[in-house]
Amino acid sequence: VESGPLATLRAAVRGTVERGESALAAANRDASPVIGNADAVVRPVDASDVASLVRWARREKVPLTARGGGTSLDGESVPVAGGVVVDFREWTAIEGVDAAARRVTVGPGVVNRTLHEWLTPLGLFFPPNPGSWKSSTLGGNVSTNASGPRSFRYGSTRRWVAGADVVLGTGEIARLGPTTLKRSVGPELLDLVVGSEGTLALITSITLRLAKAPARRCGVVVPLPPGARLGRIAGLLASEAPRGVSAIEYVDATVAAALRERPGARLPGPGALLLLEVESDSESAESEALVALASRFQAAGVPESPSVLPDADRMWSLRGEAGAVVADRTGPSVREDVAVPLGAVDSLLERVDAIARSEGTESHVYGHLGQGNLHPTFALDPASEGGRRVRQAVLNAARALGGTVSGEHGVGSLKRDWVAEELGPAPLELLRAWKRVSDPDGILNPGKLLP
Amino acid sequence: VESGPLATLRAAVRGTVERGESALAAANRDASPVIGNADAVVRPVDASDVASLVRWARREKVPLTARGGGTSLDGESVPVAGGVVVDFREWTAIEGVDAAARRVTVGPGVVNRTLHEWLTPLGLFFPPNPGSWKSSTLGGNVSTNASGPRSFRYGSTRRWVAGADVVLGTGEIARLGPTTLKRSVGPELLDLVVGSEGTLALITSITLRLAKAPARRCGVVVPLPPGARLGRIAGLLASEAPRGVSAIEYVDATVAAALRERPGARLPGPGALLLLEVESDSESAESEALVALASRFQAAGVPESPSVLPDADRMWSLRGEAGAVVADRTGPSVREDVAVPLGAVDSLLERVDAIARSEGTESHVYGHLGQGNLHPTFALDPASEGGRRVRQAVLNAARALGGTVSGEHGVGSLKRDWVAEELGPAPLELLRAWKRVSDPDGILNPGKLLP
Repeated sequence: VESGPLATLRAAVRGTVERGESALAAANRDASPVIGNADAVVRPVDASDVASLVRWARREKVPLTARGGGTSLDGESVPVAGGVVVDFREWTAIEGVDAAARRVTVGPGVVNRTLHEWLTPLGLFFPPNPGSWKSSTLGGNVSTNASGPRSFRYGSTRRWVAGADVVLGTGEIARLGPTTLKRSVGPELLDLVVGSEGTLALITSITLRLAKAPARRCGVVVPLPPGARLGRIAGLLASEAPRGVSAIEYVDATVAAALRERPGARLPGPGALLLLEVESDSESAESEALVALASRFQAAGVPESPSVLPDADRMWSLRGEAGAVVADRTGPSVREDVAVPLGAVDSLLERVDAIARSEGTESHVYGHLGQGNLHPTFALDPASEGGRRVRQAVLNAARALGGTVSGEHGVGSLKRDWVAEELGPAPLELLRAWKRVSDPDGILNPGKLLP
Repeated sequence: VESGPLATLRAAVRGTVERGESALAAANRDASPVIGNADAVVRPVDASDVASLVRWARREKVPLTARGGGTSLDGESVPVAGGVVVDFREWTAIEGVDAAARRVTVGPGVVNRTLHEWLTPLGLFFPPNPGSWKSSTLGGNVSTNASGPRSFRYGSTRRWVAGADVVLGTGEIARLGPTTLKRSVGPELLDLVVGSEGTLALITSITLRLAKAPARRCGVVVPLPPGARLGRIAGLLASEAPRGVSAIEYVDATVAAALRERPGARLPGPGALLLLEVESDSESAESEALVALASRFQAAGVPESPSVLPDADRMWSLRGEAGAVVADRTGPSVREDVAVPLGAVDSLLERVDAIARSEGTESHVYGHLGQGNLHPTFALDPASEGGRRVRQAVLNAARALGGTVSGEHGVGSLKRDWVAEELGPAPLELLRAWKRVSDPDGILNPGKLLP
C-alpha cells in the first residue's frame, strides 16, 4: 500500500505509473555524473493527462522532471529533488509535414535521427545535429537549445522552433507560436520552452521549421601545422568562406591520431585537423566553393592542401567518434562545453592545457571551432574532487575570456552557480519572475538552471 | 513656468527637452491615422540618461513612448496616453562590425538603409528589408519584428537580433543576449524587446546578426494568367524552388498595370505579377537556379516564360512603389498587413474583394505571397467609419482563415482588440505577467499591444 503524496498519483493520471527499482534506477541517471532520487515514473497519454499530472503535483507539492532520451550532460533530466519523472519517450508521433511551409509537428519523444531519416526522402532536413542525435529526443533538443556542427550555418535549435503546445506549471494548456509563416503580434512566448530545461513548462508537441536539403554535401579535411593560431584561422574562414560552408570543426592532434586508426578512416595527417562541410546544389557550385575555400586556407597560412571527401556522412561518422576515442584513452572524463569569442580561442586552449597540467592529467579538445564552441575534456572522473576542480577552472576560464559556460549542452544542476554572474542581475531577476509566473509552486524541475 | 509632473523633467535628464508646438505635432503622428497628445519630447544622451528618465517617469507616473523613424502603421510610436516621447533618432552610432562573428552593434536610431549601405562594401548585409527601409530605424524594426520581401529566405527581424542593451520599466539597465556565437544558458530574454513595441523596455543598443551577401542577385518577373490559384502556385514555388530564391512577391493586376507605366519599367504583362529574387554566388549557379525555377513555373501552370532582370535592385525599386501607385489611385487608404496559411491565400483574396464590394469601394492587394503575408488596401479614409469597418472585416477574415492580424507591422493601438483572441488566454496572461515584471508602473507605451 502506497502512502504519502504518491498514494493519489495512480488515480490522478491515466498513463502508467512505475515505481519499480529498475524503472527508478534508469530515471535517476542521464549522461552526466548527476544522480537523482525519483519516487515514480509516469508515462502520460496525452496533453490533458499531462495537465492532470501537473494539477496533482501542485496540490501535493511534488516535483516533476521531464525526460526524453536521457542524454543530457549536466543533469538536466535527472530528478535531483525527487518526485515524478515524466517520461515522454513514447510520444513519437510525426504529424503531416507541410513542404510549402517547411514545417513538421512532432511529439517531444521523437529521436533527432528518426526525424532526419523520415525527412530525407522529402528533400528536407532539421538542421540541429547534436552529437547525441542517434538517441536524443526533440523535446530534449528544444529544452536545452541543443545544436551541433551545422549550427555554424544554421544556428541552434531556437531558430528552428516555430511553435509548441505546452502545459504550464499552473496546469494550463497553452499553444505558443504563430499559425502562419510570419507574425508581428508582440514578443513570441516560445522562449518559455526553448532552453528552459523543463523548468517553466512541459512540452507536449513541437512544430519545427525545416530547411531544404542541399543536393550535395562534401567533407573537407585539412591537417593543421603545429602551433597554428586557431582563432585567426577560424576567423578568416568564418568571415570569408563561401556561403555553402555549413560546419567548421576541430579535433586536436591526439584525437586526430586516434581517429586515423579507425578502419577505413583515410584522414590526412599528421597533427590536428580541421573538418569542414560544404553544401551546394550542383557539381559546378561545389567545385567553385572548393576552389574558393582552398584559397581561404592558403590565406590563413594552412600549408597542406585540403582533402575532399565526396561523402560528408563518412566524415561525420568519424567526427562523431571523437568523444568515444577520448573515452577509450581516459575512462570516465570531464567533458565541458564552453564557448568564447573566436579571438579568445587560443587563450582558452592555453588555459585548458595549464589546468590539465596543474592536475597532472591530460586534456583533449574538439568541437565547433567556427563558433568558438569547444569541448575541453580532462582524464579525470567527473565525480572526483579533481574532476570538480577542473570543471570549475575551465568554466571560470571561459567566463574570464568573455565566453559562456554552455555553448550547446545547457546548465542542469552542474552549472547553476555560474548563471547569476553570466546573465547579470536584472536578466536573472526577469528569469526568476518568468519562473514564478509559469510555475508558481516551483514544481517544474527544481534544482536546475536557476541558481 | 511649467507646472505638474513636467516641471521636474528638465532637471531629471541631461538630454534636450522640447515642448514647442511643432516638435509635439511631429511626435504625435506616425504613418497611421492614430494621433497622440505628447506633453514633451526628450532626446536622452546615453543609456544612463534613459535610466534617469525612466526613474523620473516612475516617480511622476508619466508615460514614455519610444520613437525612431515614425513609420509605424498602427500607432506604435504615437503617445496615445500623453506623456513623453523618447526620441532615439540621434542614436546613430554603428560600432565596429565583426566580420568573423558576422555581427554589428548599432544605436536604435540607425536607419535600415544606412546600415545596408554601410555594410555593402564589406560583403555583408542585414536581411530584413521592410518597405519603410529608407526611413525606418533599427530600433523600430526590432520593436515591431519588422520584415519585408526577403523574409521568405531569411525570416523576420527576430532571427537577426543577437543582443540588446535595454532600460527596463523599473529603471534597471540590462544587457540581453550572449557574448558568444552560441549559448545554451536558459531561455534568452531578448524577446523582451523583439516585437514588444516599446511596452517592456527601451532599447539603447542592438547587436545584429548579419548575412554574407551573395555575389549575385537577379529579379525574375512573370505575369499570371487570370484566375490563377495563387495559394497553389505559392505552395509549389515555396516547396520546390531552388534554395537561392529569397523572395516571392505578388502585385495584383491593377497595381501591376500602374507599375508598368513607370518610366523604364519594362515589366511583362498583362495581368498580375509574381516577382522573385534569386541569390547565387556565380553566373553558373544563377543559370542553374533559373532553369530549375522555369520548370517550377511550368509545373505550377504559369504559361508565360519568366523575364529575368539581371539587376534585382531595379525590380525592388519598382516593387517599392506599389504602395505609392495605390495611394495615387485611392488617396488616403486602409492598408492592412494580414498573413494566412498559403492554402488560405485565395480565400483571403475572395473575402477582400467581397469586403470592398460591400462598401462600394475598390481594393488592391500586394505583398509577400511566399509567406502568405499580404497587404489588402481599400480606397477608404482609414479614419472614416467605412475605413474602420473594412479594417475590422479584413482582420476578422484573416483570423477566420487561421491567420494573424499582423504579419510584419505590429499591433500598436489599432489592433489591440484582436490580440486576446489570437494569442489565447494562457499566453496572454503570460504576456501580461512579463509586462508587470518589466514595467511595474505601466509607464512604457501604454495603450499599445496589450488589450
